Amino acid sequence: AALDSILSNGPLDINVKVIFEGEEEIGSPNLEAFIQENRELLACDIILNPDTGMMDRNTPTITFGLRGIAYFEIRLHGPVRDLHSGSFGGIIHNPAQVLCELIAGMHDEFGRITLPGFYDKVIPLSAGEREELARIPLSDAVYKEQTGVTGFWGEAGYSNIERVGARPTLEVNGLLSGYTGQGSKTVIPAYAMAKISMRLVPNQTPSDVHTMLNEYLTNTVPDTVRWELIPLNSGEPSLSPIDTPAVNAMAEALENIWGTRPIFKREGGSIPVTAIFQKALNSESVLTGFGLPEDNIHSPNEHLHIPTWRCGTQALIHFFLNISDLQVVSK
Amino acid sequence: AALDSILSNGPLDINVKVIFEGEEEIGSPNLEAFIQENRELLACDIILNPDTGMMDRNTPTITFGLRGIAYFEIRLHGPVRDLHSGSFGGIIHNPAQVLCELIAGMHDEFGRITLPGFYDKVIPLSAGEREELARIPLSDAVYKEQTGVTGFWGEAGYSNIERVGARPTLEVNGLLSGYTGQGSKTVIPAYAMAKISMRLVPNQTPSDVHTMLNEYLTNTVPDTVRWELIPLNSGEPSLSPIDTPAVNAMAEALENIWGTRPIFKREGGSIPVTAIFQKALNSESVLTGFGLPEDNIHSPNEHLHIPTWRCGTQALIHFFLNISDLQVVSK
Repeated sequence: AALDSILSNGPLDINVKVIFEGEEEIGSPNLEAFIQENRELLACDIILNPDTGMMDRNTPTITFGLRGIAYFEIRLHGPVRDLHSGSFGGIIHNPAQVLCELIAGMHDEFGRITLPGFYDKVIPLSAGEREELARIPLSDAVYKEQTGVTGFWGEAGYSNIERVGARPTLEVNGLLSGYTGQGSKTVIPAYAMAKISMRLVPNQTPSDVHTMLNEYLTNTVPDTVRWELIPLNSGEPSLSPIDTPAVNAMAEALENIWGTRPIFKREGGSIPVTAIFQKALNSESVLTGFGLPEDNIHSPNEHLHIPTWRCGTQALIHFFLNISDLQVVSK
Repeated sequence: AALDSILSNGPLDINVKVIFEGEEEIGSPNLEAFIQENRELLACDIILNPDTGMMDRNTPTITFGLRGIAYFEIRLHGPVRDLHSGSFGGIIHNPAQVLCELIAGMHDEFGRITLPGFYDKVIPLSAGEREELARIPLSDAVYKEQTGVTGFWGEAGYSNIERVGARPTLEVNGLLSGYTGQGSKTVIPAYAMAKISMRLVPNQTPSDVHTMLNEYLTNTVPDTVRWELIPLNSGEPSLSPIDTPAVNAMAEALENIWGTRPIFKREGGSIPVTAIFQKALNSESVLTGFGLPEDNIHSPNEHLHIPTWRCGTQALIHFFLNISDLQVVSK
């Protein structure tokens, strides 16, 4: 009802341009070129990206940092075909074994990534930012409930919140080699494949870590196997200022609906378009969203909590009205 | 024509019992019990097993040693479902990474297997046996041609022939975890699986190495993941005497057809029934066969060389006739 009375005041006196992106999960292969070619069409003061998530149902969240991503496939080729592991076992360098050794070498005993120079450009967390992150009410118990794990693992010297939002990571996303069906087949695989991705923080770049991974493989893969490193999707990390009129307009809108000030958070995920927009349009980004940790994203039974989503749409209406009142926006 | 005249001499004056085994590639789950329950039916003086292979088309081969096998599936369970690698990357112990580290730890820098006590019961190769194996005309060039590899890898201090025939091995036969399709999916896998098998030499046993692998996992798997070790098929290694009337009868039969004395070889593969027969029936085994290295066994386009197979059937007829003449066989 409150919204109805606001909306009855008439049309917004700002322009709203909407861009839909349907390729985000495959790394937005066409988006950057489109944006670069249509800068005039897309020109704006503020970029709203409602693609992030909330801490929980009761805690609206504004994301000011996003990790970048660099995703690769490593392929190792051994013998020309799968071999009988009895007839040839003992003399052939098994590409599945080599792959495991390569991956095992990518982290040290402190959970740090060993690629040469990997942390060189990472900006250390300031004492102030560590304090801010420590205030986020996301306890280890919540993480355990969301994931079902009984214990955590990660880079030594950092809290879980810091590890997920403000530190880079390297993950194995997939492994495939040899016989994987039911029961046994006694083969030495001809081939082994791993999907590996890194989440990057400012000022790391996908191009830099590609070079590092390539160097690691060049130095480490034995000459008994042949290797390929195939870059898949990538995206730059981003950090946005949080004390701006547009961010304040969003904070007020969220508080209006949920009755509580939003949390400001650095997000572990990657939304590459944020950095692309920032560079191409030189406009301020505001990131919020209404996904919940329990939505099973990127997993079976991914879903959306409808009441939260309805609150989100109302908050966005407030945001547009707040923005409409701002003097800083060109009209 | 020579055979025809031999065969026209009338029926063999020995009994021949034939047993067909259709489960060998899945580890013969029912064979041992059948043999134990039917010892009287199967009682015999000599066991012919024509399931091994030849060095090459021109070199008939008698196998006097077979490696045993112990095949396992290792399953690691991490989070309850695949997780978004951005939202959770940095705090969850990735089971695919843990699996790689476990496998990497199974060999040392000298290509030796690290499972505690793994080599304790292995009989060292005698100087005489090393000399005998060194005479086998199976050069590294032949191994390269058969496999397409550019270099070898294996246990330090042993020749390729020794590594394949007389030393135990541990192979990764399969790896599966997370997303393995085309392109990228940014998940932390909930699950990772490896198929691992060991080829055993006398006096190792599948039961011993099962205990060792279980101990290795107990000591090494971090408590951030849950693990299962599932034994699949297994078979004991075997060694047969080579200076017996039956082996001589086979050697003569093979020479009769190929015009050259057979090679005596320890085979890297496993034929578990050999040890089962030896124990249950207390009879002498003779192992030969007519598969060729280029038959692509356990690989796509597995095939049989028909002319060699025909020669093999003729050699076996000679073998039965030679055996029939032996005084040592009960008639």
